[in-house]
Amino acid sequence: MSHNTFGHLLRVTTWGESHGPALGCVVDGLPPGIRFTVAEIQADLDRRRPGQSRFVTQRKEPDEVKVLSGFVEDGDALVTTGTPVSMLIENVDQRSKDYGDIARQYRPGHADFAYEAKYGIRDHRGGGRSSARETAARVAAGALARKVVPGLVVRGALVAIGEKDIDRANWDWDFIDDAQNPFFTPDRASVPVFADYLDGIRKAGSSVGALIEIVAEGVPPGLGAPIYAKLDQDIASGLMSINAVKGVEIGEGFAAARLRGEDNADEMRMGNDGRPAFLSNHAGGILGGISTGQPVVARFAVKPTSSILTPRRSIDRDGREVDVMTKGRHDPCVGIRAVPIGEAMVACAIADHYLRHRGQTGKG
Amino acid sequence: MSHNTFGHLLRVTTWGESHGPALGCVVDGLPPGIRFTVAEIQADLDRRRPGQSRFVTQRKEPDEVKVLSGFVEDGDALVTTGTPVSMLIENVDQRSKDYGDIARQYRPGHADFAYEAKYGIRDHRGGGRSSARETAARVAAGALARKVVPGLVVRGALVAIGEKDIDRANWDWDFIDDAQNPFFTPDRASVPVFADYLDGIRKAGSSVGALIEIVAEGVPPGLGAPIYAKLDQDIASGLMSINAVKGVEIGEGFAAARLRGEDNADEMRMGNDGRPAFLSNHAGGILGGISTGQPVVARFAVKPTSSILTPRRSIDRDGREVDVMTKGRHDPCVGIRAVPIGEAMVACAIADHYLRHRGQTGKG
Amino acid sequence: MSHNTFGHLLRVTTWGESHGPALGCVVDGLPPGIRFTVAEIQADLDRRRPGQSRFVTQRKEPDEVKVLSGFVEDGDALVTTGTPVSMLIENVDQRSKDYGDIARQYRPGHADFAYEAKYGIRDHRGGGRSSARETAARVAAGALARKVVPGLVVRGALVAIGEKDIDRANWDWDFIDDAQNPFFTPDRASVPVFADYLDGIRKAGSSVGALIEIVAEGVPPGLGAPIYAKLDQDIASGLMSINAVKGVEIGEGFAAARLRGEDNADEMRMGNDGRPAFLSNHAGGILGGISTGQPVVARFAVKPTSSILTPRRSIDRDGREVDVMTKGRHDPCVGIRAVPIGEAMVACAIADHYLRHRGQTGKG
Amino acid sequence: MSHNTFGHLLRVTTWGESHGPALGCVVDGLPPGIRFTVAEIQADLDRRRPGQSRFVTQRKEPDEVKVLSGFVEDGDALVTTGTPVSMLIENVDQRSKDYGDIARQYRPGHADFAYEAKYGIRDHRGGGRSSARETAARVAAGALARKVVPGLVVRGALVAIGEKDIDRANWDWDFIDDAQNPFFTPDRASVPVFADYLDGIRKAGSSVGALIEIVAEGVPPGLGAPIYAKLDQDIASGLMSINAVKGVEIGEGFAAARLRGEDNADEMRMGNDGRPAFLSNHAGGILGGISTGQPVVARFAVKPTSSILTPRRSIDRDGREVDVMTKGRHDPCVGIRAVPIGEAMVACAIADHYLRHRGQTGKG
Repeated sequence: MSHNTFGHLLRVTTWGESHGPALGCVVDGLPPGIRFTVAEIQADLDRRRPGQSRFVTQRKEPDEVKVLSGFVEDGDALVTTGTPVSMLIENVDQRSKDYGDIARQYRPGHADFAYEAKYGIRDHRGGGRSSARETAARVAAGALARKVVPGLVVRGALVAIGEKDIDRANWDWDFIDDAQNPFFTPDRASVPVFADYLDGIRKAGSSVGALIEIVAEGVPPGLGAPIYAKLDQDIASGLMSINAVKGVEIGEGFAAARLRGEDNADEMRMGNDGRPAFLSNHAGGILGGISTGQPVVARFAVKPTSSILTPRRSIDRDGREVDVMTKGRHDPCVGIRAVPIGEAMVACAIADHYLRHRGQTGKG
Repeated sequence: MSHNTFGHLLRVTTWGESHGPALGCVVDGLPPGIRFTVAEIQADLDRRRPGQSRFVTQRKEPDEVKVLSGFVEDGDALVTTGTPVSMLIENVDQRSKDYGDIARQYRPGHADFAYEAKYGIRDHRGGGRSSARETAARVAAGALARKVVPGLVVRGALVAIGEKDIDRANWDWDFIDDAQNPFFTPDRASVPVFADYLDGIRKAGSSVGALIEIVAEGVPPGLGAPIYAKLDQDIASGLMSINAVKGVEIGEGFAAARLRGEDNADEMRMGNDGRPAFLSNHAGGILGGISTGQPVVARFAVKPTSSILTPRRSIDRDGREVDVMTKGRHDPCVGIRAVPIGEAMVACAIADHYLRHRGQTGKG
Repeated sequence: MSHNTFGHLLRVTTWGESHGPALGCVVDGLPPGIRFTVAEIQADLDRRRPGQSRFVTQRKEPDEVKVLSGFVEDGDALVTTGTPVSMLIENVDQRSKDYGDIARQYRPGHADFAYEAKYGIRDHRGGGRSSARETAARVAAGALARKVVPGLVVRGALVAIGEKDIDRANWDWDFIDDAQNPFFTPDRASVPVFADYLDGIRKAGSSVGALIEIVAEGVPPGLGAPIYAKLDQDIASGLMSINAVKGVEIGEGFAAARLRGEDNADEMRMGNDGRPAFLSNHAGGILGGISTGQPVVARFAVKPTSSILTPRRSIDRDGREVDVMTKGRHDPCVGIRAVPIGEAMVACAIADHYLRHRGQTGKG
Repeated sequence: MSHNTFGHLLRVTTWGESHGPALGCVVDGLPPGIRFTVAEIQADLDRRRPGQSRFVTQRKEPDEVKVLSGFVEDGDALVTTGTPVSMLIENVDQRSKDYGDIARQYRPGHADFAYEAKYGIRDHRGGGRSSARETAARVAAGALARKVVPGLVVRGALVAIGEKDIDRANWDWDFIDDAQNPFFTPDRASVPVFADYLDGIRKAGSSVGALIEIVAEGVPPGLGAPIYAKLDQDIASGLMSINAVKGVEIGEGFAAARLRGEDNADEMRMGNDGRPAFLSNHAGGILGGISTGQPVVARFAVKPTSSILTPRRSIDRDGREVDVMTKGRHDPCVGIRAVPIGEAMVACAIADHYLRHRGQTGKG
């Protein structure tokens, strides 16, 4: 079954394919009275937009967002009314192309085979509903979700590309959106390393994966639930719903399995401000499924795209054995553009839980 | 907000605390006509039951399940009628104990602080709703979920404890439930290694994490959806909802971020049986959120419990700084008993998607 | 598909059949800190309990509720913790009986045929899941839901039995739970009329329907939503989910179709208390799906039970034509006991919307 | 909270206001392979469209639907792919108008006061989200829902306007869409009666309510559930979500409360075709919440619009007492155009339950 909605009180529904006339989303449950501008949403979309460096797909899409409902105008800004906000992005660069082979072949590592096993029919053009273009709708939704929780700041960073890691000692949030930084890396020194590495990958007709880290600051304590509505569970679900993501972790994540209890537990003392303070954040801001007030830290792994120039063995719909090579515009590392998408998904999960928490407890 | 239900067509609601009279679950949406016995459910519960070796908590709980609704009798078996199956497990060993300190203190690494930030009130006895005892209800639900998909086999294995890994070359599914195996390890040679290691951990008053792998065979192709109802997303959500889990991955998982596209893509050929065959399973049986028919492989990381004898710094409800040391019956490695729980969560996710897929497409 | 949960933030799941060991419910999403006693819940159940007059079924069921989870004790009271409250009621009077015929026959007006068309299998004993006993679980849930909204009072009254109506001029809420009132009628003068009428119906081996009105006072303005989460929509859904209900209306209801706009509109003036005041309540307290602060008024129609002594033509599972006559303990007017059930459903809907409204807007 | 989605497996999300740039819907969960044309959807929209007779609002809206996603082209037709179908209708006739007074006044019988109590902010232009224009989106969704269940035919008829009823003896389905029939009445003789009556209402600056009946034929037996997912419950919920609806009933509905058990029960015999046959349909095709295979019959009451030329007493946002008179383009009987809307809601409910039933039981 095709479920294209996520969230419980803040509900995001997305729709659209890569090569249809448009794609978009409906954001339902936003509190009334939130001020925003179309430019703010556009700014987030521009960060995800393709064609901005040689390391991402050259498809030219302006990704210009139109806001169709759910607001009244107030001076230069728009203000939510509490009714659903519908946003639409037209597909512009649907380059005419012969998809004849791909329409019949199952590209290894792609959803083609599984998709056809499910539906018996598929829109093969650009991946159809499985296209990464769908994530533009999430980013637009996330731009509004960020505004739901007062003081919330959600930022992301690329921390590894293939075999290359950043040096966390160099972490500089301000550098991430620097014009000289095509990678969302927080480590200025990593730029030439990543650039050289990716140029090699690209020239080899190959691709490579990436690791992304999302940090949410200003998350009030108390969001989430002990069971089945854990904040980390819903963040994991959201991140895992991004195309090509194969793993998600919170705080120490997989490394926690290697630690001892006394090393993994975050001790507490009273802070200088007279408020409870944690002395570390192995938990990634979430204990027992509920936010502690520390920064929420999530990480996810993006696999290398299977759209590569290196031929791979496969079959077609008739069971004929074929070799598949994906020509055309593709990202050598799809993980790069996943940074703003991950931010959007984390922002949506936190905003939803903020409203849910307020609903049950009256707090917030 | 407290959401204690998961699943969409197969819906599991659990309830109960560690030290109340009972805990249980309601399994809704089961197809009519499924034959089962109470003994089958009990067998799964017995695998999760505490007190079976020196490596797990010594709490004595028979965990005897009662099935209260949703069936008619047919000879020795029960048969589902399509109405909700309610199951109940009484709490027996609620050892009288002075929780005075713990009631007021925030145990580092536990949900105490976050829980109180949320609700302002908590049932501190044994962790209340955050107790690992809640997972018994999931295991009972999973025992029925396993029967929804014809031919489905879901098995789990512990693949690492702390710094010690199994040797995958020794993998033997049959050994996992062997009486000589207190660890759910598939590697017979790992038993003495794990035993020595955990004895040391236990004597040091410490604890350690673990890695668990779940493999589901017999998953028909086509389960899941391209977006927001991805099969891997719902598996990740389910596994992340287990207490102490900090990371989830599918197939190659985090390692995929380090791979090249040509190495990560699973090539295809026609099998000897005239059906499409994959030549590898880096994807873990799921592409684009949809099952391929290969085994579904998921892995999750369990953190070390913070219930340790080593004192840790913390504060109490009044902001007084205290040292916390958790006496009593605790697992040195809570990850061990997470194996049947992980199986249950994966079985529930797959069964739910099987029904959803059948609903939308009529297949299955 | 069998969905046994209703509500969005306050979620009630019920389970159980008429002749199984027990039935019950799980109430999820209750705010923490709500004080209640088991006696309060029992008092509501006792109002619904059978066997209290000759006008309802003589089945003897103590309907004693056990509360299994979701609370801490505080003196004589219990206090919700925000985790799910599970409640259980044992079935006691499962009179041994030969259901041989009924197991194979389709009782006209009953769910037998439809049920078997759906599931292919059914628990015929006492109606199985379709038994009116299920409503005990709702009443228990409603007893807690009433406490979620400060100042909320939900009361119901029977306003017609078959062809006999009450005189609304005699309306006296205090009389409804009077020991001399076996009908939940607010009109003292109607008691002998209803009694004579029902005695005749009963002696004729027949049954008759009823009309029930529920009034909720203290509903804050602003609950509901313009579309698809209208407060009246969710009240209608809840009332329609009660067995044997065939119609629901709000305020003027069906009579509104006959009115002119100027007669149906509720005019407003400023009240003596300086607050907006409505001069009438044709709307039944809900305009555009949102509560206005006036009393919410809902009415529903209960059909006559088909369990009658008068033989009716039918068929059995093998297509044989048979005459069906339902012996045994049955209510000549099932609508009488529907009064506390209707109250419970309205209380649940309002409580759920109270939490949802607070979640989205921060009000309340 | 603002919930703008309904349905469980077939999920419809609508968005948009009366005076924004557009409105629309996203239909999620449609089975793949359903053939449809834009013209078919347009045909349903044209039946709901305003401005077609002097008895409905003169607003000129072409209501031209655009289908943006979820299909592939196949000759002249479109075919669903199983992904969400997004549809958009632009608002064209947003007549420039001074809403100054209405922006501050609470129109009696309108949602203005309740809306502002909820959100603190409202889009007063044309009713904002509460506008009847929203129903265009439902009609578009219903046009696709009709195609989900093979053989399903859902038709509606207006059976009363104010004090005037049709003569059911004259019922002629074919007349309903006759060019000489501006009322969706099935009774040719009622046209001049309704026309005279409504002309009088209109000239008096008044308005009047209506009764609509929806009949669904070809509903397979087995749809629905015994509790909380009753087919009639979800139909009632859907119809009650239509603007201005104040009552819903199934089969005999409210009249059933007046009947005796032997008169209300639908007897059965074997039909000439060797299949079970009901001898009457008091139940309206649904017993115990589950369809019987007979036609499903639902009726709903639409109140008179409060947009009338007769001044009514009210207050404004500042508590000043005012007289409100609604000038402009309004329907003297909004119930007329509710016929295709009711059809759409019933079609959506049945289609959703068809998929749910198939999911749980594998049937259908």
